[in-house]
Amino acid sequence: MAEKPSRGLADVVAASTALSDIDGKAGRLSYRGYDINQLAGAATFEEIAYLLERGAPPDRGELAGYRAELAAGRALGPLVTASLAAVARAQQPMEALRSLVSLASADDPDSGSNDPEPNQRKAARLTAQQPILVAAFEAVRTGRPVPEPDPGLGVAANLLLQLTGRPPERRAAEILDTCLVLHADHTMNASTFAARVCAATLSDMHSAVVAALATLKGPLHGGANEQVMRGLEAIRRSADGDPLEAVSAQVAARLRQGEKIMGFGHRVYKVEDPRATVLRGLSAELAAAGDDTFYRMSRRMEEVVAAEKGLYPNVDFYAATVYHYLGIPTDLFTPVFSVSRMAGWTAHIIEQHADNRLIRPDSEYIGESGLTWIPLDARETR
Amino acid sequence: MAEKPSRGLADVVAASTALSDIDGKAGRLSYRGYDINQLAGAATFEEIAYLLERGAPPDRGELAGYRAELAAGRALGPLVTASLAAVARAQQPMEALRSLVSLASADDPDSGSNDPEPNQRKAARLTAQQPILVAAFEAVRTGRPVPEPDPGLGVAANLLLQLTGRPPERRAAEILDTCLVLHADHTMNASTFAARVCAATLSDMHSAVVAALATLKGPLHGGANEQVMRGLEAIRRSADGDPLEAVSAQVAARLRQGEKIMGFGHRVYKVEDPRATVLRGLSAELAAAGDDTFYRMSRRMEEVVAAEKGLYPNVDFYAATVYHYLGIPTDLFTPVFSVSRMAGWTAHIIEQHADNRLIRPDSEYIGESGLTWIPLDARETR
Repeated sequence: MAEKPSRGLADVVAASTALSDIDGKAGRLSYRGYDINQLAGAATFEEIAYLLERGAPPDRGELAGYRAELAAGRALGPLVTASLAAVARAQQPMEALRSLVSLASADDPDSGSNDPEPNQRKAARLTAQQPILVAAFEAVRTGRPVPEPDPGLGVAANLLLQLTGRPPERRAAEILDTCLVLHADHTMNASTFAARVCAATLSDMHSAVVAALATLKGPLHGGANEQVMRGLEAIRRSADGDPLEAVSAQVAARLRQGEKIMGFGHRVYKVEDPRATVLRGLSAELAAAGDDTFYRMSRRMEEVVAAEKGLYPNVDFYAATVYHYLGIPTDLFTPVFSVSRMAGWTAHIIEQHADNRLIRPDSEYIGESGLTWIPLDARETR
Repeated sequence: MAEKPSRGLADVVAASTALSDIDGKAGRLSYRGYDINQLAGAATFEEIAYLLERGAPPDRGELAGYRAELAAGRALGPLVTASLAAVARAQQPMEALRSLVSLASADDPDSGSNDPEPNQRKAARLTAQQPILVAAFEAVRTGRPVPEPDPGLGVAANLLLQLTGRPPERRAAEILDTCLVLHADHTMNASTFAARVCAATLSDMHSAVVAALATLKGPLHGGANEQVMRGLEAIRRSADGDPLEAVSAQVAARLRQGEKIMGFGHRVYKVEDPRATVLRGLSAELAAAGDDTFYRMSRRMEEVVAAEKGLYPNVDFYAATVYHYLGIPTDLFTPVFSVSRMAGWTAHIIEQHADNRLIRPDSEYIGESGLTWIPLDARETR
């Protein structure tokens, strides 16, 4: 096996997990045995975060306790509070979140332990703080005060409240809640895998989450939802007449030049990503209430890419228009995704620490061999 | 392949690289085709950083240019400068470095590009800044001003100057320089692999280095050198009489209880790690000039572990006493290691970006399946 490189580790099993499972041929995703299609619209993000981080769906008392932990965990510590404005002014959103979560370990009373209970407490605090950090970042750059979270609202509704400055419509909060449920975990995606590689050195949960945030930032991973929206916006701006015609012409031309269209195809799914199916419906619902141009453009793009390449939309494709219709600024799409994925990352870190082996692969050497080092003074000038 | 999990990816080839090569059976390590035994004592860290980051040994003009880039790159930007004292007071050394490098992307003029030339410039700046950050951290907590780097000295000598507050002896600087050469790269070690997983999403160099620092922090990886020293110190403190007898008794007892002794064994080397061989010699040389107790204790520990377990010392084992004899505070051992490994990390990130594929493995699902989600109101209380 050491002799056969697997570029990108495609199809290589890197870890065992009881957190999520993908059937790429059937287009199914489940969390701890529950199919995502059962959960979307039926479970709240808090229930799913609890399910992932603690192992089973909470009963009413457990959920109340977890929500109280989240409410208490929202408070930012002194190092993060002192640094927030300067970081938010100087860094892009995902850079800022990477920095702020790195700073946050200073303020966490459990930062010294990787044991299951401290890890669960840290997971709840990190899950609670991530939406607060996203909203605080937005508040700094807009100069608008952030409303206090409403203790009667859930994570999704409070995030909309804090991001937009006004209480969200009930259905908007439900739709964002469904997005958070859909995005919470996805087996060995790159950021989760980075978190596990980090945690497997027995580094701590904050370190592993920082590695995950650094990785999610990449446009081939979490950054893709933002790229999808920027692509739609660019085509709409450039369209002389019908934006749907512009989609058809521009996307087909790009595909024929060998360009990649963001939001399509997935290494694991051979059929449609079940999350994309749900998100398409939510995008259609939101579009029906206002300007449906971006939704119709998305549908057209889907048709063109299917006809030219046979590729299906992935989770990022319809997440883009859903987030857009919910009023989330485009450069906060990846940060909002991270609010949800924090539940999965922290659950994977708990799982890695509980049954650990260092993740240390081999590499194939493709350079020169047997060279003789010539001391600097004898080295010829090129 | 997808059906057979490989725990920890042992022996799985995860990437191709022209940077370093290990022959685990022969106990050989080379950088870009040059055996480490040729380089130790013959090359400076600057030459090796250039070799790794830019592809070939520098001629005199190229080295002068690179040294000038390092000198210019040492200047910390406004966000890092403004944050330094608060971070250094609130965080442990590796946490602080993770935070400070994350903040540093705000101050880097090339932070928006993953192209080869901006990446090379960022690599030089990150390589230049890492020792400055380590020394600045130490200065905050000791309250001692940091001497300005001496433009006539190399990275190793300047690091000792800044850490200890006085110009280092020539031989001490040479020995640290050799350590930096030995530690610069090591194929797919966990932190380098984390950096490549991050970079493979087309996230940026600072993000990938932050992921690497987060990973190096773990006691099964970079944190091991500090653990080795703390182990020696604890045995020496607890020894009633001869510390060598205490080593024999305590190490044998721990091994028989199934405990792991830090600094021994390596997944890739089946014989002695060639870096350990060089470091043993350097430790002996430094020990001969003063109190050789820790060196003699290390030799004894090596004998006991060899007899009981047949394991060889790894790179961390003799690095511990070498760093100790050089006057480096024990909790800065891993940070000093990171000064060197920065060259390897940045070179791997350049290599990953130059020929990229997303690193996204599979996982084996070991949880329950086909469960039915019961709505909260109908869920029974446990």
